[in-house]
Amino acid sequence: MPGSSTGRLFVVTTFGESHGPAVGCVVDGCPAGMPLDVAHIQAALDRRRPNQGRLTTRRKEGDRAELLAGVFEGRTLGTPICVIVRNEDADPRDYDRWRGIYRPSHADFTWDARFGHRDHRGGGRASARETVGRVAAGAIAERLLAALHGIEIVAWVDSVENIQCDPIDVNAITRAAVDANEVRCPDTPAAIEMIAAIDAARRDRDSVGGTIRCIARGVPAGLGEPVFDKLEADLAAACLSIPAAKAFESGSGFEGASQRGSEHNDLFDTDPAARIVTRSNRSGGIQGGISNGMPITMRVAFKPVATIPREQPTVDSAGRPARVDPRGRHDPCVLARAVPVVESMVAIVIADHALRIRTTGLS
Amino acid sequence: MPGSSTGRLFVVTTFGESHGPAVGCVVDGCPAGMPLDVAHIQAALDRRRPNQGRLTTRRKEGDRAELLAGVFEGRTLGTPICVIVRNEDADPRDYDRWRGIYRPSHADFTWDARFGHRDHRGGGRASARETVGRVAAGAIAERLLAALHGIEIVAWVDSVENIQCDPIDVNAITRAAVDANEVRCPDTPAAIEMIAAIDAARRDRDSVGGTIRCIARGVPAGLGEPVFDKLEADLAAACLSIPAAKAFESGSGFEGASQRGSEHNDLFDTDPAARIVTRSNRSGGIQGGISNGMPITMRVAFKPVATIPREQPTVDSAGRPARVDPRGRHDPCVLARAVPVVESMVAIVIADHALRIRTTGLS
Amino acid sequence: MPGSSTGRLFVVTTFGESHGPAVGCVVDGCPAGMPLDVAHIQAALDRRRPNQGRLTTRRKEGDRAELLAGVFEGRTLGTPICVIVRNEDADPRDYDRWRGIYRPSHADFTWDARFGHRDHRGGGRASARETVGRVAAGAIAERLLAALHGIEIVAWVDSVENIQCDPIDVNAITRAAVDANEVRCPDTPAAIEMIAAIDAARRDRDSVGGTIRCIARGVPAGLGEPVFDKLEADLAAACLSIPAAKAFESGSGFEGASQRGSEHNDLFDTDPAARIVTRSNRSGGIQGGISNGMPITMRVAFKPVATIPREQPTVDSAGRPARVDPRGRHDPCVLARAVPVVESMVAIVIADHALRIRTTGLS
Amino acid sequence: MPGSSTGRLFVVTTFGESHGPAVGCVVDGCPAGMPLDVAHIQAALDRRRPNQGRLTTRRKEGDRAELLAGVFEGRTLGTPICVIVRNEDADPRDYDRWRGIYRPSHADFTWDARFGHRDHRGGGRASARETVGRVAAGAIAERLLAALHGIEIVAWVDSVENIQCDPIDVNAITRAAVDANEVRCPDTPAAIEMIAAIDAARRDRDSVGGTIRCIARGVPAGLGEPVFDKLEADLAAACLSIPAAKAFESGSGFEGASQRGSEHNDLFDTDPAARIVTRSNRSGGIQGGISNGMPITMRVAFKPVATIPREQPTVDSAGRPARVDPRGRHDPCVLARAVPVVESMVAIVIADHALRIRTTGLS
Repeated sequence: MPGSSTGRLFVVTTFGESHGPAVGCVVDGCPAGMPLDVAHIQAALDRRRPNQGRLTTRRKEGDRAELLAGVFEGRTLGTPICVIVRNEDADPRDYDRWRGIYRPSHADFTWDARFGHRDHRGGGRASARETVGRVAAGAIAERLLAALHGIEIVAWVDSVENIQCDPIDVNAITRAAVDANEVRCPDTPAAIEMIAAIDAARRDRDSVGGTIRCIARGVPAGLGEPVFDKLEADLAAACLSIPAAKAFESGSGFEGASQRGSEHNDLFDTDPAARIVTRSNRSGGIQGGISNGMPITMRVAFKPVATIPREQPTVDSAGRPARVDPRGRHDPCVLARAVPVVESMVAIVIADHALRIRTTGLS
Repeated sequence: MPGSSTGRLFVVTTFGESHGPAVGCVVDGCPAGMPLDVAHIQAALDRRRPNQGRLTTRRKEGDRAELLAGVFEGRTLGTPICVIVRNEDADPRDYDRWRGIYRPSHADFTWDARFGHRDHRGGGRASARETVGRVAAGAIAERLLAALHGIEIVAWVDSVENIQCDPIDVNAITRAAVDANEVRCPDTPAAIEMIAAIDAARRDRDSVGGTIRCIARGVPAGLGEPVFDKLEADLAAACLSIPAAKAFESGSGFEGASQRGSEHNDLFDTDPAARIVTRSNRSGGIQGGISNGMPITMRVAFKPVATIPREQPTVDSAGRPARVDPRGRHDPCVLARAVPVVESMVAIVIADHALRIRTTGLS
Repeated sequence: MPGSSTGRLFVVTTFGESHGPAVGCVVDGCPAGMPLDVAHIQAALDRRRPNQGRLTTRRKEGDRAELLAGVFEGRTLGTPICVIVRNEDADPRDYDRWRGIYRPSHADFTWDARFGHRDHRGGGRASARETVGRVAAGAIAERLLAALHGIEIVAWVDSVENIQCDPIDVNAITRAAVDANEVRCPDTPAAIEMIAAIDAARRDRDSVGGTIRCIARGVPAGLGEPVFDKLEADLAAACLSIPAAKAFESGSGFEGASQRGSEHNDLFDTDPAARIVTRSNRSGGIQGGISNGMPITMRVAFKPVATIPREQPTVDSAGRPARVDPRGRHDPCVLARAVPVVESMVAIVIADHALRIRTTGLS
Repeated sequence: MPGSSTGRLFVVTTFGESHGPAVGCVVDGCPAGMPLDVAHIQAALDRRRPNQGRLTTRRKEGDRAELLAGVFEGRTLGTPICVIVRNEDADPRDYDRWRGIYRPSHADFTWDARFGHRDHRGGGRASARETVGRVAAGAIAERLLAALHGIEIVAWVDSVENIQCDPIDVNAITRAAVDANEVRCPDTPAAIEMIAAIDAARRDRDSVGGTIRCIARGVPAGLGEPVFDKLEADLAAACLSIPAAKAFESGSGFEGASQRGSEHNDLFDTDPAARIVTRSNRSGGIQGGISNGMPITMRVAFKPVATIPREQPTVDSAGRPARVDPRGRHDPCVLARAVPVVESMVAIVIADHALRIRTTGLS
């Protein structure tokens, strides 16, 4: 399969260029009979949509989802579900002067190296606008996970530049708490500082990066494959496939690497309901690549936005010196809008594994 | 595909349990006509083999590779290449008393949750012994990459517990330099400290974790897919599928997340040969998921070894309290032996993408 | 992958229900830089469209293709190409009375057995309307094959009921000759008889089946995989995935099974251009699953249309006796409209293998 | 995936060349906990083995199966099952003189066109010896189908040259009845004539082709995918991937194409157990690509064996005239030995779909 599809049983394909007619997705493999309405998808897209506040891009997109296939009388058919979103505020002329110029730390050069022919307008398919399809698919995956196991997924902004969110109770955190402020950090004092940092970067004609934490609660023990398709391997790939993501941690991550085994091991025990649990959760809910029933925890790093509204030297496609000076509508920080994208990718991976375990036993 | 295969065009399947008759791999999709000899595979296995020194497990395995298919008169046929390695020092009796007991931070419990029936001897298929097949496949991938593009892959131990290797010149580092000491850290003073730390952990009946850095040199611009199968997504999955790996960074990784765009952006330039290059390499050789011709750089975290030779409380499969007290032959630190495994996984991913780009254009 | 996708490198996914909002396809893996225009797709859809004459269904569908993604400035981007066609003449009320009744030899019962929830309107996704997506994808595949190797694919109606087309020169047959009459049989006397047979079936409130032959010219030697993905295996699957198809022959097919080796073997020779050819072509252009450069020849059988405008006994979903008496707009013979569908499926398979061979060698 | 693997969830990979060290298979995705012993696999291989009587090749192969992975204490682990069979009677010298000569209707030429480098000894991987791996995998699939649904698969020789087996009761036929004679035709008078025909072909230094019928009983309604992966599409591909197979029919096949809908439709009814059945079975147990609970019926055509012990003109790899005159040990008829291969491929396909349906619903 070429690279625009992911998953083995819950298969998500996205399509569309930033300034082409539409973006969207096909989700194949969603079980039949699941209640699904375009409103569920729309609600998810609304959380990702640009122009939600002063922190985000001013591109004006209604992002109206159309459900073209796979649902009948409010329930899934087990056939491919196709969702499209028309691009409304696409203006090719904005981009004509960047046609042959390689913006620093963008995909312009590598895309040319790979494909030869490229839609230069707004990054084309390399644009973060491609994540519209992911979020639509993620909304479907989340409904499946809720229906199957009551699984909940919550992500939040953990750091912006050097400002760090305090530790969060993974058993209590909710999306409502995350969405309570525009930077999507549930630690209010930190959120205030983050907003200030983003504003400062904007004033400085600069941008900032940061990290997102994500947890999945209610995942039963037994999800994941033991060798190449370990649950954390698939989660890492899913998160690092998000534009601008550069690093991924499962459980204790890099910090765990400096511990000793006697500190790091999660001792097994039973809970009051006689279920096997671990006393600590440095494993992040995954052992040997398979979920152990504890909350799944992960962290993703996003580099600072490559587009900064200042002049930078570069080269054009012939290798000649050139300069870029973008004046468009760009986010100084993508973290808040990346939160639903991370949740979507995590949901897609877990949905896939929730179907995969069904083929494991004799009955 | 179930989880024991990886890759789209260069497809690696591993098989085998730690104490079953054999472990091995099938590599399908390797181009025809490539010189390949069992000695190439054996040399790679010898770097991974246990019992290489006082730092590693004392399990005695000759790890002799047999090449059963896919090679004729010293060149590949384009058909599946099958390599097997017999398990010699397997002693099921060692493990009988652990049959129903869940070792902390091992895959015993999750494997039972997933499969119901489990080979408890030495971790069965969840054992690091499974990586024999990966290293055999990696040796084949490395020969392909050398033949196609002169690509070289070198990994080394970057930290053990809290001891950190100094920055290494990614353009100069060689496997010979890495293999110069038994901990595979090319910074000799750090290596000496690491060895001491491992010895200390052993004396304390404990274990340590650490990190590995890996680079790939000579990767041409254009490898990788722009959306889900981004090069760094596939590398992350490959590395996090290695037993005990818990985190992955591409390029600047987590550190880059605290920078601003103006600091982090890699400015394009041309080199004396008029090729487009970047002045810095915070992108780690990958932009928009596609290689840009600069060295690919990454870092992987390994948690401390879960098996520690001391008594730990746990539960058995019925949830009853139990104790584990392993006395077997175990590494207090897997980092040195994980170096060729990381290199192998990176080689397998890049080999796959080196074939995938061939289908991109009209000619 | 669930069952709505086909191909390994040239991957076609179709979506849509007969009376849902739209049908369409996503084609991923088409090389970048290929000239493609919506008009090419529209021309192909026009050959498949209903209501082309008295022989076909009277459903009124403009079948207007919209190209949503994957093409920029008239050339493919190497990204997923998405084509949709809105369903215009969908009238759910037509079908309400058939909701729980199993039409004989239709997919109603089996679909319920598989999915539980079903769009009963016009067969839902089991409708031949699904082939709109295949023909759109086939048009793209055909352009690729023409660009790569000058490959031409031509199918024609070989028999209707008991009326048999005379042998056709596979080197000379053209689509223009096939399209010269409305039954798409290039043997005019046979075509006249076929039309009469179809008219007779209509008068008798009955339907007819028949066979289609298809050839591919210009396929270079070397396409196909030697084991499971033999070229004829993939062609057989592609053709038998078309609604109502029940049998497939490659080359001499069933007739060859009654011959002796000395009669059946195709002797090798060289042509005036010193290329290796075979003197006969009982192999149908494929030997050992790989093309040999001779024309690829195949034949597909289609059962008579299951919908016949007369009362038939059946059961409902509770197993109670029921009767069906469809009065809608239905083809008494699908053969003429199946011609472009067969061509499309053959093109999709050959396009996939034309990309797959690129990964075979070292250079 | 390259072409040596088949299946989505029950994934079979075969490996090995006819005169290399070994042939074998890896089966990944078989559910855990299924009783499996090497004896089950050996029994299946024994039915396929050469040198079983005067009708078959005199190559002497013990075909002893070794089970290397995936089974522990007599039950499957859910991990890859690897079976190998050493090639014992391989003699490379037999084949040296054919190294550069293209045997008529063999894969020598097409393999060279595809791969460049080729193992010419006995057809290399294009040899029917590759089917050892299929039969080993088929034995595993059959045990799964028996365990899951009590599914039984029986194939028999339906015709040899022009001698036709009488219609067989698909509900009663057993493997014991098929194996009662060496040509594996359950119609004894026809079997006697078939044996005479094969003997005549041998005396004439010639070979014969023929057809095999296969049925699957006990397949529940609901197996199969509605679009590209229709059950009959997958069965057709599986059967046409067998060496020398050239045609496939599902149910009424080509004969059904000359019928009218009123004759061909299978009317639904209920049986005494109130299950929905069809009164006739022209659909061959599959409607809309999905099983309907009736016996699945199919027929496969095999061309006459290409190797005939007489001189035939041909060309060499440089296009120069040459002659072949094989004197080795070859079957004048492969039909009897192809019976277990057909059964194996059918079992593998149905096993895959038996797992695939598990992912269809919400519970």
